[in-house]
Amino acid sequence: MGLIVMKFGGTSVATPELITRVARRILATKKEGNDVVVVVSAMGDATDELESMAAKISGEPAEREMAILMITGERVSAALLAIALNELGQPARAFTGWQAGIVTDSGSPLRAKIRRIEATRIREALREGSVAVVTGYQGVTEDGDETALGRGGSDLSAVALACALKADACEIYTDVDGVYTTNPRLVKDARKIRAISYEEMLELASMGAQVMQARSIEYAKKHGTVIHVRSSFSEAPGTVIREADTAMEAVVVRGIAYDMTEAKITVRGVTDRPGVAATLFNRMAQAGINVDMIVQNVSEDGITDLSFTVTRPDLKKAMDSCLLIQRDIGAREIVADEEIAKISLVGIGMRSHTGVAAKMFDTLACHGINIEMISTSEIKISCIVREAQAETAVKALHTTFALDREGDEY
Amino acid sequence: MGLIVMKFGGTSVATPELITRVARRILATKKEGNDVVVVVSAMGDATDELESMAAKISGEPAEREMAILMITGERVSAALLAIALNELGQPARAFTGWQAGIVTDSGSPLRAKIRRIEATRIREALREGSVAVVTGYQGVTEDGDETALGRGGSDLSAVALACALKADACEIYTDVDGVYTTNPRLVKDARKIRAISYEEMLELASMGAQVMQARSIEYAKKHGTVIHVRSSFSEAPGTVIREADTAMEAVVVRGIAYDMTEAKITVRGVTDRPGVAATLFNRMAQAGINVDMIVQNVSEDGITDLSFTVTRPDLKKAMDSCLLIQRDIGAREIVADEEIAKISLVGIGMRSHTGVAAKMFDTLACHGINIEMISTSEIKISCIVREAQAETAVKALHTTFALDREGDEY
Repeated sequence: MGLIVMKFGGTSVATPELITRVARRILATKKEGNDVVVVVSAMGDATDELESMAAKISGEPAEREMAILMITGERVSAALLAIALNELGQPARAFTGWQAGIVTDSGSPLRAKIRRIEATRIREALREGSVAVVTGYQGVTEDGDETALGRGGSDLSAVALACALKADACEIYTDVDGVYTTNPRLVKDARKIRAISYEEMLELASMGAQVMQARSIEYAKKHGTVIHVRSSFSEAPGTVIREADTAMEAVVVRGIAYDMTEAKITVRGVTDRPGVAATLFNRMAQAGINVDMIVQNVSEDGITDLSFTVTRPDLKKAMDSCLLIQRDIGAREIVADEEIAKISLVGIGMRSHTGVAAKMFDTLACHGINIEMISTSEIKISCIVREAQAETAVKALHTTFALDREGDEY
Repeated sequence: MGLIVMKFGGTSVATPELITRVARRILATKKEGNDVVVVVSAMGDATDELESMAAKISGEPAEREMAILMITGERVSAALLAIALNELGQPARAFTGWQAGIVTDSGSPLRAKIRRIEATRIREALREGSVAVVTGYQGVTEDGDETALGRGGSDLSAVALACALKADACEIYTDVDGVYTTNPRLVKDARKIRAISYEEMLELASMGAQVMQARSIEYAKKHGTVIHVRSSFSEAPGTVIREADTAMEAVVVRGIAYDMTEAKITVRGVTDRPGVAATLFNRMAQAGINVDMIVQNVSEDGITDLSFTVTRPDLKKAMDSCLLIQRDIGAREIVADEEIAKISLVGIGMRSHTGVAAKMFDTLACHGINIEMISTSEIKISCIVREAQAETAVKALHTTFALDREGDEY
């Protein structure tokens, strides 16, 4: 008995039949005596189709108009879902972003930020016993312009509504049944994580992005909204994302992420003088290239090597930029390497446990895996290894840190 | 130099390529020094697709939610058209129904009536030199519920905006290049009508419906808005719909409509006493059947025949209703006939010219065509004939009334 926000992703509402199925699930929650607010994404890949139509017309479409275009898919699914609920005898009202009172800023119409929620109409609907079905991914500015909340923004709509309505639960229904210790398609012993902290979820982004939009996790963290990520195709409990507590911190490593979408550039034989790194990475920033890991070795005889990673599609552009300034920074050689993988251990328990890095390096060494770059944060250790050895590395680390065994019984 | 409202139908914006083409046409009007407000329908049969998805979920979908669903198609085309204009270097802003300030009543969400237009945002856009692109077919109630204006309602959006903005012209672009004296696919000498009165356009509904929604013609008539119906695929002038004047009234017959979608029911041998017709047609109304023509013969010996027409899909239901009350109304026999056609002469000049009916009946008689029912209004004469003779009838009447010759040179 309480107020539940239920969010359904695009694969969960991809067809009229699936929409009716989702409606039955909502009805079950309602019948348990709960007030229910539903947030819904666009059907299947409807939003991609809208985007590709615009691409046929303009290489750089006006953002304000793109927002109006991109948010139509959610209106279709919200209206159909409300129709399905009414058909099942459950009164329901569909609300678009502006009707739901989701007020955003106006700086960037396609990646607007939620300012506040004026949930009067939603509260009215709940009071009359209706389910409120809200279009995800959208809001409206103070000036009455419709805005989009960035790709995956329906998660943000759900979290923000849960927060504004002081909901008892925010359930994110998706096509996976939770967050795993690592990709279960790679490691068959991968286990569903019962509870994970906001920070860990954010650091597991390369796995987490398939599950939830990063911005919505940050929003939930800021407002302390507890999220339950679960499957819309099964009744099994999923993964709870919440504030870390002592029990949670007892687990050193929560999960292992790996990423084979990056490439490495090594700038060899640079004179170790101030300003070299600044010149290089300013150039990358100007070219709009996102740099991930950066490692500079200790210099020998005033000469050093500098390595960094970029996404593979950016590699050519990054190499071109490097070669342009090779002489300026006095580099001997610039080498690109696409056959790398990034393996990351993530765990909030690392803050209070020592020896995690040593154990990771030891495990990789035992399996003859060379580490090419290392980067650490408070709750994450990442290593670059050969792509061909990534699977072996992930499996070995999964066993070493006992992720295949029950450990988060809280 | 003035303010032009241009409305483009679904076939004119069916693909991204066509949208760019429409944008060029708008640009040409803008470059002539005009302010331009564009109203746009959904792409191709997008709205039909939305309707059929809803039909898969519910046989009787909630109207409020259906409205939210049905008006999404216009948002897609309006956003894309604004993007296309921007791409051509012409600043443009897309406005949804509520943003355009199109306020409707709330009685029937799918067939809402426009109450007023608060065009502040459109005027702002024009002032800054932008083209305002408005989603057709939709508005918003005082309570903030989104509404649809009935099928073909984008015409109404255009006419109402032209009226509210005191536009110098309201141009309805469609896939036909105007209104013809009769269907040019049937009669090769059919001529495009240069100017037609609102009343004639309404009476020519069976032809006119393909061109423009009846409600929007009524709205234009009430507010005196002059409409120019023309092709979006050619530069040729189309047909102007306006208030009748003396020159217009000089033409007796403006056009010939024919309709082969009706069926006739004849109730034979009814006692000619008060209440029989009332009983019969109340029953039809209860069954939701729309009755078109009704003819009752003068009775002989207190016994009469009563004939009426319904649409063919309604025939079975209508017959069932008749048979149920056959005994009550004391009818000898009830006969259905699907092989009929309705031929109508329409012309505002009939008000002041006599002998039109006689000339019509004479022409039909000369071609051996029997008239089964006759019905007249102030500006229309309709006859029911055999379906097989309809083509001959239309061609003969077209020649008799000289519709193949230039005559409306005003």
